[in-house]
Amino acid sequence: MIPNPDFLVEPWRLRECTLNLDLLAQSESLFALSNGHIGWRGNLDEGEPHALPGSYLNGVHEVRPLPYAERGYGNPESSQTVINVTNGKLIRLLVDDEPLDLRYGTTVSHERTLDFRNGTLVREIHWVSPAGKAVKVRSTRLVSFTQRAVAAIGYEVEAVDQPVRVVIQSELIANEELPTQSDDPRSAAVLEHPMNAVLHASSDAKAVLVHRIEHSGLGVAAAMDHVVFGDDDLPFRTEVEPDLGRFSVGARLAPGKQLGFAKFVAYGWSSTRSVPALRDQVEAALAAAKVTGWEALQAEQREFLDAFWRDADVEVDGDAEIQQAVRFALFHVLQAGARGERRAIAAKGLTGPGYDGHAFWDTEMLVLPVLTYTYPESVAHALWWRHDTLSLAQDRAKQLGFEGAAFPWRTITGAECSGYWPAGTAAFHLNAAVAAAVTRYVSATGDEDFAATAGIELLVETARLWRSLGHHNSEGRFCIDGVTGPDEYSAIADNNVYTNLMAKRNLLAAYDYVHRFPDRARELGVGEEEAAAWHDAAKAVMVPYDDSLGVHPQSDGFTRHQEWDFARSKYPLLLHHPYFDIYRKQVVKQADLVLAIMQCPEEFTAEQKARDFDYYERITVRDSSLSACVQAVVAAEVGQLQLAHDYTAEAALMDIADLEHNTSDGVHIASLAGAWIALVFGFGGLRQDGGMLTFTPRLPPGLSRLRFTVRQRQSRLRVIVTPDTARYEVDGPDELTIVHHGHTVRLDTVQELAIPPAPRVRPSGQPPGRAPRRRDPSTEEDG
Amino acid sequence: MIPNPDFLVEPWRLRECTLNLDLLAQSESLFALSNGHIGWRGNLDEGEPHALPGSYLNGVHEVRPLPYAERGYGNPESSQTVINVTNGKLIRLLVDDEPLDLRYGTTVSHERTLDFRNGTLVREIHWVSPAGKAVKVRSTRLVSFTQRAVAAIGYEVEAVDQPVRVVIQSELIANEELPTQSDDPRSAAVLEHPMNAVLHASSDAKAVLVHRIEHSGLGVAAAMDHVVFGDDDLPFRTEVEPDLGRFSVGARLAPGKQLGFAKFVAYGWSSTRSVPALRDQVEAALAAAKVTGWEALQAEQREFLDAFWRDADVEVDGDAEIQQAVRFALFHVLQAGARGERRAIAAKGLTGPGYDGHAFWDTEMLVLPVLTYTYPESVAHALWWRHDTLSLAQDRAKQLGFEGAAFPWRTITGAECSGYWPAGTAAFHLNAAVAAAVTRYVSATGDEDFAATAGIELLVETARLWRSLGHHNSEGRFCIDGVTGPDEYSAIADNNVYTNLMAKRNLLAAYDYVHRFPDRARELGVGEEEAAAWHDAAKAVMVPYDDSLGVHPQSDGFTRHQEWDFARSKYPLLLHHPYFDIYRKQVVKQADLVLAIMQCPEEFTAEQKARDFDYYERITVRDSSLSACVQAVVAAEVGQLQLAHDYTAEAALMDIADLEHNTSDGVHIASLAGAWIALVFGFGGLRQDGGMLTFTPRLPPGLSRLRFTVRQRQSRLRVIVTPDTARYEVDGPDELTIVHHGHTVRLDTVQELAIPPAPRVRPSGQPPGRAPRRRDPSTEEDG
Repeated sequence: MIPNPDFLVEPWRLRECTLNLDLLAQSESLFALSNGHIGWRGNLDEGEPHALPGSYLNGVHEVRPLPYAERGYGNPESSQTVINVTNGKLIRLLVDDEPLDLRYGTTVSHERTLDFRNGTLVREIHWVSPAGKAVKVRSTRLVSFTQRAVAAIGYEVEAVDQPVRVVIQSELIANEELPTQSDDPRSAAVLEHPMNAVLHASSDAKAVLVHRIEHSGLGVAAAMDHVVFGDDDLPFRTEVEPDLGRFSVGARLAPGKQLGFAKFVAYGWSSTRSVPALRDQVEAALAAAKVTGWEALQAEQREFLDAFWRDADVEVDGDAEIQQAVRFALFHVLQAGARGERRAIAAKGLTGPGYDGHAFWDTEMLVLPVLTYTYPESVAHALWWRHDTLSLAQDRAKQLGFEGAAFPWRTITGAECSGYWPAGTAAFHLNAAVAAAVTRYVSATGDEDFAATAGIELLVETARLWRSLGHHNSEGRFCIDGVTGPDEYSAIADNNVYTNLMAKRNLLAAYDYVHRFPDRARELGVGEEEAAAWHDAAKAVMVPYDDSLGVHPQSDGFTRHQEWDFARSKYPLLLHHPYFDIYRKQVVKQADLVLAIMQCPEEFTAEQKARDFDYYERITVRDSSLSACVQAVVAAEVGQLQLAHDYTAEAALMDIADLEHNTSDGVHIASLAGAWIALVFGFGGLRQDGGMLTFTPRLPPGLSRLRFTVRQRQSRLRVIVTPDTARYEVDGPDELTIVHHGHTVRLDTVQELAIPPAPRVRPSGQPPGRAPRRRDPSTEEDG
Repeated sequence: MIPNPDFLVEPWRLRECTLNLDLLAQSESLFALSNGHIGWRGNLDEGEPHALPGSYLNGVHEVRPLPYAERGYGNPESSQTVINVTNGKLIRLLVDDEPLDLRYGTTVSHERTLDFRNGTLVREIHWVSPAGKAVKVRSTRLVSFTQRAVAAIGYEVEAVDQPVRVVIQSELIANEELPTQSDDPRSAAVLEHPMNAVLHASSDAKAVLVHRIEHSGLGVAAAMDHVVFGDDDLPFRTEVEPDLGRFSVGARLAPGKQLGFAKFVAYGWSSTRSVPALRDQVEAALAAAKVTGWEALQAEQREFLDAFWRDADVEVDGDAEIQQAVRFALFHVLQAGARGERRAIAAKGLTGPGYDGHAFWDTEMLVLPVLTYTYPESVAHALWWRHDTLSLAQDRAKQLGFEGAAFPWRTITGAECSGYWPAGTAAFHLNAAVAAAVTRYVSATGDEDFAATAGIELLVETARLWRSLGHHNSEGRFCIDGVTGPDEYSAIADNNVYTNLMAKRNLLAAYDYVHRFPDRARELGVGEEEAAAWHDAAKAVMVPYDDSLGVHPQSDGFTRHQEWDFARSKYPLLLHHPYFDIYRKQVVKQADLVLAIMQCPEEFTAEQKARDFDYYERITVRDSSLSACVQAVVAAEVGQLQLAHDYTAEAALMDIADLEHNTSDGVHIASLAGAWIALVFGFGGLRQDGGMLTFTPRLPPGLSRLRFTVRQRQSRLRVIVTPDTARYEVDGPDELTIVHHGHTVRLDTVQELAIPPAPRVRPSGQPPGRAPRRRDPSTEEDG
C-alpha cells in the first residue's frame, strides 16, 4: 500500500491538503456525509468540476425493467435503482465577473477535512480569479444526526487584498445531468430525467420543490432556507422553477471583509403522502432547524458523536494509518446506519450509486455486528426493515416453491432485484445471515421485546425456508443441494459448508426461540413437531470433509476440482474469464470456508482451522472487498498474526487507498465495518455464542496496544490489549462473565489477564501476486 | 394419442380434408415445403387468413443485441434471427368483385395434400363467394430438389355453374407484417421491417426485388416469372414497387372454363456479391426453370424422390399411423437437409421461425445419423458447414480459455447465440456430437477424401478442446467438471457420464485419424505426444457409479439429490418451476444417461442398461421433443418392446398430433428423425461402431413387419424384420459383414436369421401422468 500523499494521516480527521482533480470521484465518496436517511456526496460546493453529483435519500429509487437474453421462470422482471434526488448542497460564487471554478484561475490553497468528531466536512479555499481577484472561502457542511431530515452548510467568502464584488447563489436543482454510468443504453435511458416536477414555491429566503418519480411513483420534497450572517438587511432574491430553486445574495467586499450565510436543507419522501403533506413535512423540518440555528446544529452534531465515540472508539497504537482508517470506517458505518430507521443499509451506504444502491447480505454479516457492539439502537431498525419486507420474502419463497421466507439477494424495497440467479437467488445463505444478526443483537442487548416480536418471526420464517430447501440423504444426513455459498467464484454446489452450518444455527435458534416464546410460536403456527423437525435437521446437517487432504471442501467435490492456473490469471477474474471456467476450478473470490470458521468456530477443531485456512489461503484471490477482514480474523485465530495485520490494513484502507479502484461509486461499507471486525474479532478475538462473550486477544508484532469497547446490555466492556496482557473493565450495571483464552472470568472487578504465547505456525502462501502488502516495513518482502 | 380427425391416415400422403382455421399455424408447418435452401410455410395461396407467413432462405438472418440483466465475461453480445424474406408464394384471386377469402362466402370443399413421392403440396378448393359465384381452384406448389434456387406453383381457377369474371394477382411481397412472436419488445423491434429495398424491376411477366438486411448486411434477391396456360395472348400486367412485385391476369370464364398459369420463383442471397450480380443470379435461375417448364419441373421432383425412397423408405406393418408418420418424417428430414450445401440444418428446418432459426447439437446427434444411412450426400455438406465455421469455434474456445474449437450451442452463422450459459456454452457435449457425426459418416460411406480433409480437422480440434477442458484427479481419472449434459433439467455438474463417454470417443477417434492420416496430422501440428495424451485421457475417463443403488448417476452426485415432487409438478417444468430447484433435484427433462447407453452401448453391461433405464425412466418427464425416440431405442434394447412402441409413436407423431403444442413455430426435425431412429435403431437394433454394422432386431407385439434400408459405402443393405426372423440382403458391390444378435454374419447371399426371444422384464414406470400413451388399444390402460 502506498499511502495516498493527498490525504494526511491524522487520528481524528481525513484531511486532503491539495485538490487533485483526478481523484475527484474517490474524494466525493470519501467525503460523503450521511445520517442513514440523507446522503450527500462530497461534491464541491460550486457543483463543478465533479465526477458524479450525488444526493440520495434512503429508499428513494426508480424502477427499471430487467432484460434477459433467455427468459426463465422466477427471474425478477424489474430492478430498483437509487436515484440522484434534488441537489441541495449547491452554492455558486461569482467573483466580479467570473464564477469560482477551480479549473480556472489560481488555487493558492485548497483543503478539505472530514472531521470524525465534529461530523462535518470543512473546506477552505484561497483562490485567485483569472482576472486576479483573490478570495478565501470557507464552507462547513453537515448532515444532521440529530435532525434526520436536515442538512446544513455554513458558507463564507472573504475578499483578500483588494475589493471584490461577490454574488452567492444557493440552489436546489432537480434532474441534474449525470455522466453515463453504464455502456448499456437501456439502464441509462430510464434514469435520465427520473423526476417529474409537481410543485415549486418560495417565500423570503426559502424555496421548496416537490417531484414525483416516473415509474416508482415516489414523491420527493426538498426545501431550503437561509440566514445571512451579520448584516440582516442585505438584499437577497429567491426564485423557483419546476427543477430549480435559487437564493441569491451579493455584496461588494472590502479586503478582509466577509459575506456568508447558513443554508438549511430539508428532505422528505413518501409513496403514500400527498404533495401538500410532503411539502409541509419538509418546511416544518426546515423551520425546526432554523429555530435550532446553525451554531447549535453543529453543537448537537458534536454531542451526538462524542457519545458515539465514547462507546465505539478503537485505539490502535503502532499503526497510525490503521488508527485513522478504523475511525474513518466507524464514522462511515455510523453514517450509513445511524438514522436508517426501518430502511436498508446499502452496500455503499448513501455515498454513491454503486450496486444500484442495493443492500446485500454483508449488511447483516459484517455491518450489523459492528453496530451491535457500538451503536445497537440502529440494529433494531435495520432488522425491523427486514421484518417489514417479510411478506415480499414469503411471496418469493412461494414463487420458488419453498416454505417460509426467501429474502432477496439485492434490493432496495425488499423485492428481489438480482438478474443472474446462480449468483443471486441461489445464494440462500443470506437468510441465515439475517437470522444470525437477530440472535447476535438479542444476545448483546437483551432486547426481549424485539426477540418476541420481529426476532422470533424472522427466525421462524428463515428456519422454514431451510427445512424446505434441504433433504435427508440415504444416510440420514441433512443436505442442501445446488446453492451458491459466499464465494462467488463457485456456484450451484451441494452442501456448501458455510451454508449448511449457518442453516444449522438458524434452525437451532428458531427452535430455541419458539421454546422461549411459546405464545408467539403458537401465533406463528409453530407446533412441537415442526420445531422438532428443525432441531433434527440441524443436528443431522451434512458437513463434507476430504479425508485424503485433511481439509473441508467448501462444497461437495470442491477439493477434487482442477486447480486454477494462476499463471494465466487476469484480475479481477470475473472480468477476464468466463464464469463457466471459474466455477469449475479451485479458485476462491472471497472467504467462504474461512468465513464458516469465523462464524461457527465451535464446528472446527484448532487443527482443522489451521489446515483449512492454509488450504484456502493458497487459492483465494480476494476479488471481493468482503474477504480481507474475514481472512484477517481467522489468520489471527490460527496464529498468523503478521498476515492478520496485513489483511486488517487492506480492509481498513480499501477506500482511503482505493484498493479496488471503485471507491468512485461509493465507499465499501462492509469492508469498512471489516476494519473494526479485523481488529476486535481478530486481535481482540471476540466471539459471542449465546449470552457469553469470549476473547482470545493477541497482538501482531507491529501493534503495541489495542483498546476497544463492546456494548453489552446496559454496560460497556472496555478491553485493552497489550502484547502480554489484556485488561477487562465493565462500565455499567451488568455483571459480566467472559471467557479469556479458554478461562471463564467473572468481571466484578477490573481484570488484567496474561496472554499465552501464540502457537508457532508456518506462514501460508497466497496465489502468485495476490499476497497482501506487508504491513511492517522492516520485514517488507516485495517492492 | 387421439388421431387428428382433420388429417387422414394414408401411407404416402398427409391429407387434410377440411380446413380448420384453428389449426392453421400447425398446418402451415406440416405443409411447409423446402429443399434445405428455400423454405415456404404452407400458407394459403391467397395469403390470408394466416397464422404466420413464412418464406425463409437458409442462412439469411438478422442480427439483434442480446440483453443481460447482469453482464458476464464471454456472454455473446448479439444473436442471429431467421427472417421472413420476400414472399413469392402469394397468389390472390378476385371473383367478380370479391377476393377469395375463406373467412367469407361458403367453402364447399377444401383439401390439401402433401405428397411425399411427388414432393408437392396440392390444394383443391370449391368456394362460393358471398355473392353466390362458385369457383374451383387447384394449386400445386413445389420447392425444387433439382433446381436449388427455384420454387414454383401451378395455379388454375375454374368457373363452376355460371360465368365469372376473375382476376389473378401473383405477387412478391417484402417486409410482410408479422404477428408478434414474443412479449419482449426488444426482439420484435429490430425485426419489424428488416429488409431495405435496393432494387426493383420488371419486364414482361417477370419481376425482381433486391433487398439488403439492415444489420446483418446480407443481400437478398427474389424474382418471379409466369407462363399462362393455354391462351398465349391473354393480356397481363406486371408492376413493381420497392417491396412489391405484381403480375395480374384476368378473364371472364364461362362455366367449366379455366384460367391458370405456372409461377416460377427464384431466390438468391449473398453477403458479398453486388446487387447486379445477385439480380443476375436469380434471373438466370428463373430462366433455367422456365426453359425446363412446369411439367418437367414436377417430373424432376418425382424422379428425385423416387430415388430417395428407394434407399430411404421404411415399411411398417401393423401401425398405419406410424407408417404414415415415418414417411412424413423422412420427407421433412430430407427437405431440411437435401440442398443445404454448407449451411446449417436448423432445429425447425426452414418450416418456421422457432428457436430463431438456430441449429443445435441434435442435428448431429439425431438428424445426421438418419441422413447418413439414407441420403449421405447431404451429410458431407452439413459437416463441411461445421468445418467452415471452425475459425469462429477456435476463437470461442480461445475466449473461454481452452484449446481447439468450441462449437456454438445455437447459431445460424457459427457464432455462439446462446444468452444463458448454464444451458448453452456449458453444454460442451455438442462438440462430441459433431465428432461422432464425422466418424459415423466416414464409417458408413468410406468417404476418405472427407476424412482426410474436414473430418480429421474437426476431430483434432474437438479432441484438443476436451483435453483442455478435463483434468486428472488424484486417482488419475480424467474428469470433466462443471458442464451441462443433454438433460437440460440439470446443469453445471461434474463428470456427466454421457459427456465423458462421448469425449472419450472423440479423443480416441482423433487418435485413430491422426495415425491413419499422418501427413495431415503433421499439417495440423499434432505430434505423437499430443495424440498420446488424448489416448491416455480417453482410457482414464471418469465414469461415476453409485454402488449402493447399482446405477450410474448421470453426473457426480445426481443419485444423492432429492427426488422431485411430481405431485406438485406443472408441465413443462421450465415454465412453472425455477431452474434453481429443477437443477438440484432428481428430475430429467430428456434422455441423458439413457442417451449414453444408446450412443456408447459397449460401455454398459446388459444388466446395467436394464437397471439404468429403469431408474431414469421413473424420473424422466420428456419436456423435450428429443427424448422419446432415445427412450424408444433403449427400451427396445432392454426388452421393453411395448414401451418402445409407445415412444416410437410419440416421436413419430410429435408434429402431426402437435404433442408439444408448438408445431406452429415449425416442425421438430430432430424428433422426426427420431421416428426413423426409433424404428431402425430400436426395433432394427442397428448400431455402428467402426466399420461393422450390428443388429439386434426385435419387433413389439403390435408390429408384424419392418423393412428398412441402410446405405453402406456403394451398397444398400435391405433389412426385413418379422417377429421371428430377420432377412438381410445386400444390393450393391460391397461385401458386408454384420453382427446379428451377437453372431457375425457375412452377407454374400441373402441371409434369413432367427431372432432370439426377448428377455422377460418388468415394465418400468414413469412419473405420474407422464407415461406415454399406450399404442395397442387392446392393452389400453388409461383413458
